[in-house]
Amino acid sequence: MTFQEKLDKIIKKNKSLVCVGLDSDVTRLRQDFGEAKQLSFNKTIIEATADLVCSYKLNTAFYESIGHEGIKALKDTCDYLVQKYPEIPIIIDAKRADIGNTNKGYVQFIFTYLGADAVTIHPYLGEEAIRPFLDCKDKGIIILCRTSNPGAGEFQDLEFRIQNSELKTKNINKLYQYVAYQVANRWNKNKNCMLVIGATYPDELKEVRKIVGDMTLLVPGIGAQGGDLEATLKAGLNSKKQGLMINSSRGIIFAENPREEAMKLRNDINKFL
Amino acid sequence: MTFQEKLDKIIKKNKSLVCVGLDSDVTRLRQDFGEAKQLSFNKTIIEATADLVCSYKLNTAFYESIGHEGIKALKDTCDYLVQKYPEIPIIIDAKRADIGNTNKGYVQFIFTYLGADAVTIHPYLGEEAIRPFLDCKDKGIIILCRTSNPGAGEFQDLEFRIQNSELKTKNINKLYQYVAYQVANRWNKNKNCMLVIGATYPDELKEVRKIVGDMTLLVPGIGAQGGDLEATLKAGLNSKKQGLMINSSRGIIFAENPREEAMKLRNDINKFL
Repeated sequence: MTFQEKLDKIIKKNKSLVCVGLDSDVTRLRQDFGEAKQLSFNKTIIEATADLVCSYKLNTAFYESIGHEGIKALKDTCDYLVQKYPEIPIIIDAKRADIGNTNKGYVQFIFTYLGADAVTIHPYLGEEAIRPFLDCKDKGIIILCRTSNPGAGEFQDLEFRIQNSELKTKNINKLYQYVAYQVANRWNKNKNCMLVIGATYPDELKEVRKIVGDMTLLVPGIGAQGGDLEATLKAGLNSKKQGLMINSSRGIIFAENPREEAMKLRNDINKFL
Repeated sequence: MTFQEKLDKIIKKNKSLVCVGLDSDVTRLRQDFGEAKQLSFNKTIIEATADLVCSYKLNTAFYESIGHEGIKALKDTCDYLVQKYPEIPIIIDAKRADIGNTNKGYVQFIFTYLGADAVTIHPYLGEEAIRPFLDCKDKGIIILCRTSNPGAGEFQDLEFRIQNSELKTKNINKLYQYVAYQVANRWNKNKNCMLVIGATYPDELKEVRKIVGDMTLLVPGIGAQGGDLEATLKAGLNSKKQGLMINSSRGIIFAENPREEAMKLRNDINKFL
């Protein structure tokens, strides 16, 4: 089963486009979660939300911060998900990318050691470099395109000289648009590519949707970062009123009632479908 | 002491611009290194080369590939270096970059947990995103600019519309040149920025040298990847006949006699100084 097939199934079952981010920052976890704090905390969130999500996203930064024990907690969380909720896709928000064969180490880490279903990737080195990721046919390879941070435009909005008539016709002249175009038209031979577009930029999300057709987009930035849900859905849903994973992390996992928050987000999204 | 000061000292002491890459791919290590294979292997390389290098570079991909035990081996190697060779800078070739505060986890991993001196970073998210790295005044923040892989040009060579007269005067119109320009002129408030430029692209190295003045550049691609040493030095040395760390990894660590290879590279470089 491919990542997309797995995703489609759980979206249907849970009626949800919500991707919960298990950004389990150790400095924010209560002491009573004990020794294996991150794993214990993650389990409580997973148990509270497993019927309300289309995926879980784990950002490696929050685990690496404490070194090898954090990596073990990350793995234990993935193992727990694989065993108890094998139908829910796991996205590792690793934002990796090295050259050529070096990426095999990351592929091994994310898909073999962690047993995850998808990974996020930097585009800067080009398709040739990240081929070892793209060759994983059944996995989701999610490329950073227009990120949610305030300064995202420094390079991503650069306007370049248009060199062919197709780009001219499609009005593709900014770097993030060209990344979207290349991914959709060149990188996606295995139909396993997706993109990250921040909810904080609905106009850019709309542009990207025009370029990539029905491709699934991972959209962080709702909640703590201030992205607007209605604008995001209007701009980003594909022709089937799908094609989005709406990520919320801190807004759900550190809420007083994570289940309630996840349900609210799911229901708020579903009103627009 | 800043990274640059530490680097300058060891370059002088060891008369070397050689950065040895401890890319200790477990699939290539002999069985007789035993349980803690990567650490044991790294120790033999370090002992054979410590008086011949200006830095060691550890690429996280080769350690993450086996999960938390690899991360432990990475830490143990860094601890060994810090204790036994505190004068040699440690570069973690992590190619990280996330948005804003999330980077604090990576900063914690690389500078606190591992105790390293420098890190490599993707530029795509812009300066504002990677501020937590740039704020580490005494550490080296080494930003990917023109990478050594054959397909590096897909985005890095994009020509953009020049919007100000300074860029026009300096003939800066490709993405990698603009990255170099931004890093040198905007990101480098703490004088802790450097760039990665592949030895496989001496023309681009020359362009970057013009843009960034005497800034230190990390140059991979000599050896196994086929970069030409003479062309690299001619294009890349700064006004003081310094400003380069010439990296070789597989070409040294998997050679029959790593010490001899490291010495040869050091001496070959020094002929041109």
